Amino acid sequence: MEMIATAEGLGRVDGDCIQLLSTEFVDLAEPLRKGLALEDLSTYPVRGEIAYGDATIIAPLGRGATTWGVGSNYAREGATPTRRGGLPTFFMKAPSSLADPHADIWAPGAMAAEFDYEGEVAVVIGQAAFDVSEAEAWSHIAGITAANDSTARDVMKATGNPALAKSFPDTAAIGPSLLPLSDVADRDAITVRSWVNGEPRQDSSTAHLIYSIPELISLLSRFVRLVPGDVVLTGGPEGRGVDSGRFLAADDVISISVAGLRPLINTVRSRSRALTLQELVKAK
Amino acid sequence: MEMIATAEGLGRVDGDCIQLLSTEFVDLAEPLRKGLALEDLSTYPVRGEIAYGDATIIAPLGRGATTWGVGSNYAREGATPTRRGGLPTFFMKAPSSLADPHADIWAPGAMAAEFDYEGEVAVVIGQAAFDVSEAEAWSHIAGITAANDSTARDVMKATGNPALAKSFPDTAAIGPSLLPLSDVADRDAITVRSWVNGEPRQDSSTAHLIYSIPELISLLSRFVRLVPGDVVLTGGPEGRGVDSGRFLAADDVISISVAGLRPLINTVRSRSRALTLQELVKAK
Repeated sequence: MEMIATAEGLGRVDGDCIQLLSTEFVDLAEPLRKGLALEDLSTYPVRGEIAYGDATIIAPLGRGATTWGVGSNYAREGATPTRRGGLPTFFMKAPSSLADPHADIWAPGAMAAEFDYEGEVAVVIGQAAFDVSEAEAWSHIAGITAANDSTARDVMKATGNPALAKSFPDTAAIGPSLLPLSDVADRDAITVRSWVNGEPRQDSSTAHLIYSIPELISLLSRFVRLVPGDVVLTGGPEGRGVDSGRFLAADDVISISVAGLRPLINTVRSRSRALTLQELVKAK
Repeated sequence: MEMIATAEGLGRVDGDCIQLLSTEFVDLAEPLRKGLALEDLSTYPVRGEIAYGDATIIAPLGRGATTWGVGSNYAREGATPTRRGGLPTFFMKAPSSLADPHADIWAPGAMAAEFDYEGEVAVVIGQAAFDVSEAEAWSHIAGITAANDSTARDVMKATGNPALAKSFPDTAAIGPSLLPLSDVADRDAITVRSWVNGEPRQDSSTAHLIYSIPELISLLSRFVRLVPGDVVLTGGPEGRGVDSGRFLAADDVISISVAGLRPLINTVRSRSRALTLQELVKAK
């Protein structure tokens, strides 16, 4: 059953309703850090119900979630999956890049031209993971959700630095709900689809990943201790703006659904003050 | 007056004592996020006193602080400061890399050979900063502290990825206390010194930075919204292991002092299971 965080409290999604649970936790990272599984939380007593459309859905893991991403992790249509040099490119996105699941997202100043979406499957860490094997990896994962690993493509080209190109404030989002791992029908083929203004853009599944989810967790955990509430994005399949040259513009609506769940939906807004790419990447 | 976080509560350092304050805040990021200045907090009523040596000093900004670092930001002795291509190399360190200020730190598996310290001045964000000018930058800074921006040099060479080479669990630390900005005597020349087993290694000041503190904050804020409690490391002056070829070994004690404050002191321990560099950076 999908678990969700709202301004009205934590809940579980039941059709068009959210059943609010008797708990003081304000986001879904808190129970994970206390050692509770999402499955445990879902059995808490229900204290009330609210229509999904009336709820204020908030970032499921709060404002401080450490979010890891990975560079190109799907082969292009018809191309052979290649592993350049062993390790994928891991990076972190600043927590302040994450807007709420149905909030507006804001094009970075320079991004009138190349503000890109990436619909991705996100996995949420449930148990601390350091130096874990692929076989052990799933047991460290609490659940899955959708993510928009937004990217300022022109900043990426100009700086080569994903931590800068993917950290602009309120450009990205994850959610809206978390699906506990035990409710994932086929963990080796989690679907991910995206739409811009209703037009299909991405449609794939984690069966086509170059580095599988257990492999990503195992590799990353050689370097980093992942802790409960951390998020690992698994990469975006073809259909991103960078694949077609069609980037986001003001008022575009980007929707991303994972495993057929209710989608993450954000509308793009433009900042009034917009640095040009040249202003952005030049020091004095 | 130096502000400090301990397992016994928040306090201010007074010689060899810590005056414990009447507050429910558990770390110094919490009041900053509520809009309180460190100076405000320092005027809270004192509820008791504890000897510095009896206190359990904890990470001043808690377990989730977003920590930005910057690549080479001091010229080598006698060399001309150079700016390669405009922007410095910004990266994030995983929050789980930070040990408590006087706790043991743990050599990454591969790091028997090249586990390096970097004593640095760290600035702590007090007011959210996005697209701020150099002139505005200091007004977004709450205070300063010391940092050990530890690095697995061989991993850095093998992967080129600072997010991986600088995020091994419990390898780094910041603290022990925060000095409110209004107590910093000369904010343009903050001293930083380090010692390994008592032997002096680094001795410089931010007067010698290639990118000054206001410039770092201004540049980073073009891409990222820095939020209260975030930390920006300013780079390590010469005297690091990489400069001399003398890296850290088990039982080494690394001490780092900023602005003449009581130092950050961590002892190096070795993990029982140690991946070799080859195991670490190779995928299947």
